[in-house]
Amino acid sequence: MSLLYFEDFPVGEVVEYGDTEVSAVRIKAFAEQFDPQPFHLDENAARDSVAGGLIASGWHTAAMLMRMNCDHFLNRSASQGGPGVEELNWLKPVRPGARLRVRRTTLGARPSASRPELGLVDFAFEVVNQKGEVAMTQKNVAIFKRRPAEGAAR
Amino acid sequence: MSLLYFEDFPVGEVVEYGDTEVSAVRIKAFAEQFDPQPFHLDENAARDSVAGGLIASGWHTAAMLMRMNCDHFLNRSASQGGPGVEELNWLKPVRPGARLRVRRTTLGARPSASRPELGLVDFAFEVVNQKGEVAMTQKNVAIFKRRPAEGAAR
Repeated sequence: MSLLYFEDFPVGEVVEYGDTEVSAVRIKAFAEQFDPQPFHLDENAARDSVAGGLIASGWHTAAMLMRMNCDHFLNRSASQGGPGVEELNWLKPVRPGARLRVRRTTLGARPSASRPELGLVDFAFEVVNQKGEVAMTQKNVAIFKRRPAEGAAR
Repeated sequence: MSLLYFEDFPVGEVVEYGDTEVSAVRIKAFAEQFDPQPFHLDENAARDSVAGGLIASGWHTAAMLMRMNCDHFLNRSASQGGPGVEELNWLKPVRPGARLRVRRTTLGARPSASRPELGLVDFAFEVVNQKGEVAMTQKNVAIFKRRPAEGAAR
C-alpha cells in the first residue's frame, strides 16, 4: 500500500471508519491509571453520581479516537505529527457496551509557508456511537509530507 | 478534609503540584494501546524519525495531567465534570526519564446562569518538565457545585 501524503486529504472529504467496543473492564483499567474518579471506576458509585452509571473517561474516548486514526490512516501516512488540539467536546457519555466509530471531515489544507516540503491539514473528527449519536468532537491540525515529485529521491 | 467547591478556586490563583515520572515502559504501554506510531513504540525506529528518539504520545501526556489533577484536587472536590477542552498544545517532547508537574492558573470563574447551584471555572494548565520547560498547555472549563449555605442540607 502506498503512503498517504498531504495531497491525499482533499478539502471537503468525509470518511467513516473504525469499530471500537467499549467494555466496563477497559473503562475501569484506563480510569485506574489516569482518571480515578468514582463514576469511571465503580458501577455502584457511578449510579449515585452525576453520570447515572459507569462512563468512560473523556480522555479514554480521546485515546480511542487516536487509536482508530492510527489504524485507519495515520500509520500508513507520511505524518509529521501535530502541534495540538483546537477543541475537544464531550457531548454524550460513553458507557459499557458502546461501539464507537469515527467520522472525519477535512476542513482545510495548505502548504506550509516556512517548510515547502510539508502541508497542514485541518481535520474535524466526530466519535459516533452505535445509536448514531455524536459522543465527542475534536478539531486539530495535522502535518504531512507533501508527495515527492515523480522520480524524485524519497 | 473538607470538599472543594466553586468558591475555592479564586481567579488569578496559581498553584503547582504533581510529580509524575515518565518511563520508556509506560510510554510504550500507552502507545501499544492507543497510539501505536513507531516513535512512541520503539527506540530504534524513534531515533530515525522526526522525534529523534522515543517520545510519549501527546494523549499520554494529557492523561498524565488528568491523573495529577485527580490526585491533587478533583477527587476531593464537588466536581461535576466538564464539557471539553478549549485548546491543547504539545510544545516539547516528553521523553523517558522526564518528571512532570502541573502549574494551574485560574483564569475566570462565574456562577452558572441556568443552574444557580453550580459554578464554572476556567483553568489554564501547564505541564512542566524537570528542566522547567512547558511541555504541554491545556485550557478547559470545569464545573463545580457551589458551597452550600451554613447549616443547609448537603
